[in-house]
Amino acid sequence: MNTEISQLLNNKVSWLADCGPNDDIAISSRIRLARNLRGLPFPTNASPEQMKHVIATVETAVQKTSLKDELLRFDMEAIRAIDKQVLFERRLVSREFIEGKIPGALLVTGDESLGVMINEEDHIRMQAMRPGFQLGPVWDELNKLDDELSALVPYVFDKELGFLTSCPTNVGTGIRASVMLHLPGLVLSEQINAVIQGVSKLGFAVRGIFGEGSKNLGNLFQVSNQSTLGESEQQIVQQLGSVITQIISHEKNARRKLLESNQNFLLNHVGRAYGTLRHAYILNSEEALESLSALRLGVDLGMFSSIDLHTVNELFIIIHPAHLQKYAGKEIDSEERDVFRASLVRERLKNADKR
Amino acid sequence: MNTEISQLLNNKVSWLADCGPNDDIAISSRIRLARNLRGLPFPTNASPEQMKHVIATVETAVQKTSLKDELLRFDMEAIRAIDKQVLFERRLVSREFIEGKIPGALLVTGDESLGVMINEEDHIRMQAMRPGFQLGPVWDELNKLDDELSALVPYVFDKELGFLTSCPTNVGTGIRASVMLHLPGLVLSEQINAVIQGVSKLGFAVRGIFGEGSKNLGNLFQVSNQSTLGESEQQIVQQLGSVITQIISHEKNARRKLLESNQNFLLNHVGRAYGTLRHAYILNSEEALESLSALRLGVDLGMFSSIDLHTVNELFIIIHPAHLQKYAGKEIDSEERDVFRASLVRERLKNADKR
Repeated sequence: MNTEISQLLNNKVSWLADCGPNDDIAISSRIRLARNLRGLPFPTNASPEQMKHVIATVETAVQKTSLKDELLRFDMEAIRAIDKQVLFERRLVSREFIEGKIPGALLVTGDESLGVMINEEDHIRMQAMRPGFQLGPVWDELNKLDDELSALVPYVFDKELGFLTSCPTNVGTGIRASVMLHLPGLVLSEQINAVIQGVSKLGFAVRGIFGEGSKNLGNLFQVSNQSTLGESEQQIVQQLGSVITQIISHEKNARRKLLESNQNFLLNHVGRAYGTLRHAYILNSEEALESLSALRLGVDLGMFSSIDLHTVNELFIIIHPAHLQKYAGKEIDSEERDVFRASLVRERLKNADKR
Repeated sequence: MNTEISQLLNNKVSWLADCGPNDDIAISSRIRLARNLRGLPFPTNASPEQMKHVIATVETAVQKTSLKDELLRFDMEAIRAIDKQVLFERRLVSREFIEGKIPGALLVTGDESLGVMINEEDHIRMQAMRPGFQLGPVWDELNKLDDELSALVPYVFDKELGFLTSCPTNVGTGIRASVMLHLPGLVLSEQINAVIQGVSKLGFAVRGIFGEGSKNLGNLFQVSNQSTLGESEQQIVQQLGSVITQIISHEKNARRKLLESNQNFLLNHVGRAYGTLRHAYILNSEEALESLSALRLGVDLGMFSSIDLHTVNELFIIIHPAHLQKYAGKEIDSEERDVFRASLVRERLKNADKR
């Protein structure tokens, strides 16, 4: 097994395992910046040699930043498909990156809080991620890395437009900031569509757990900025922050009202989900995500003294196919995964009960 | 509250709580005899005065039998509708008996193993019931009571036809013997319809838990003789016994094969049902019966060391509406019952876990 992948699997993932502000509702805050090197074509138009040159250049630069001692390195041409999938399930890389044929690499800190994709759509896609709702610290951290890198490699920058990017939607700041929110209260009280519409009208995007095109399984929603042009990074981050603050407040209200006016419905919803997770022997990923969502809500409501949010957060990630196969130690088909998933979830919750 | 009803509710019910032969599959064995007094019209054609006379005559006679010290007495005109329903849910009386307008009474031993309905369809309907598959002892017990009574009151008897009864289907021996079977293995392996057809062709009836017209909820099936004429009581009981022996053997095979060839499916079926029973906050009676059926199967398969069959057997009865309202101590509507049922089941299984 790729030793870096093993290291990731054995590591504590900071953005899942640590506490963060408002982590009853906000799972994580993430920002990424798109940057490109001057004098070289974008990855989509470059030759393999040019792309290898980009990898070498960026890597050399990153090794000179303050991150240098903490980095794990993944060569996308060298690692196995299942290991790519693990990186994707951990939200360290995009689907495009692992599916592409372009030579690429990922550099990431052991706690997965900071990473650099080389040769995704752009030469450099750096991201920072932290638990809970804390866009400010995430931005500070990423901005520091960006400052360090910009002093080491020449970025393509236009005085009028700002940073140039492969896709026009990223031109300007190249920033995408997002917060992953767990919104079971708004879903159960059927207010979620109104909230999504409102957020969209304000110019923000709402996506599923794995970004563009993914479903809102487990009542998990990523809210992010759409526009990257005409405003500073700080302004964009601040505007997103104020939208997130409002959504969190709506979700809190929704949970409180459900508990006040429809307690048995809520207890039943959570209790049954826990019963399924704790006792099923066959569990597909869709049902697992839905049930984990209800369990997470129950943990927040104080129904499960022995289970913490981080146990649930981790399950949200490790029930996916590549992680399951890593834990199983072999490739297993969909039917076997449903059995293994059920057993993994049962054990984790049983162990939590015993603590 | 009617003190006799309270006594029943607080009593250990022998046919549910005690062990019996093959009680992994056979819940209970029951036989009833229909008898009528000479010189009086059947209940359906009699005046209220005549019916009261029947009650007095039969009761006086029963008080002279060996049962006399153990009897509880219920006057159908005097007790409340909900108490009648409790008697029905405990399988001590028929639906016709509690819905009829004819003056009637029930005499029953405290352990509910032996009872006499006066003025159901016939003047006398006596029944004996024991846990598990043991028609022989049940017949001996009931036959003894029948002998004692026949010496005390004159039965209508025709030399050609045998005992005369209100409905022609009971003429002859007036016997109906039945065994309540729990057949989840045959249901899950989709063999149940073939078995029912086979049993029917042999001249035996298959009904739900509450007799004629009731659904086979909880995979519970009552198998009974249809014909009452032309054979002795012993012959009828023996023939039913040999059919039951075959069904039990089929069910055992079905369970074994499911466990061998489809273990995860079976564990999942049972585990999920237990999860629902143990953690739901809203539970209707249909889902409760289906889940209890799966749990009972799991107990038999050794999945739950802390739960015994009798805990499950008792739940099969007390989750019904009248019992729930008795435990709640007040009338509650259907929606409240679903909440109360869930809480009662949760508590019973939680307590079992603690033992």
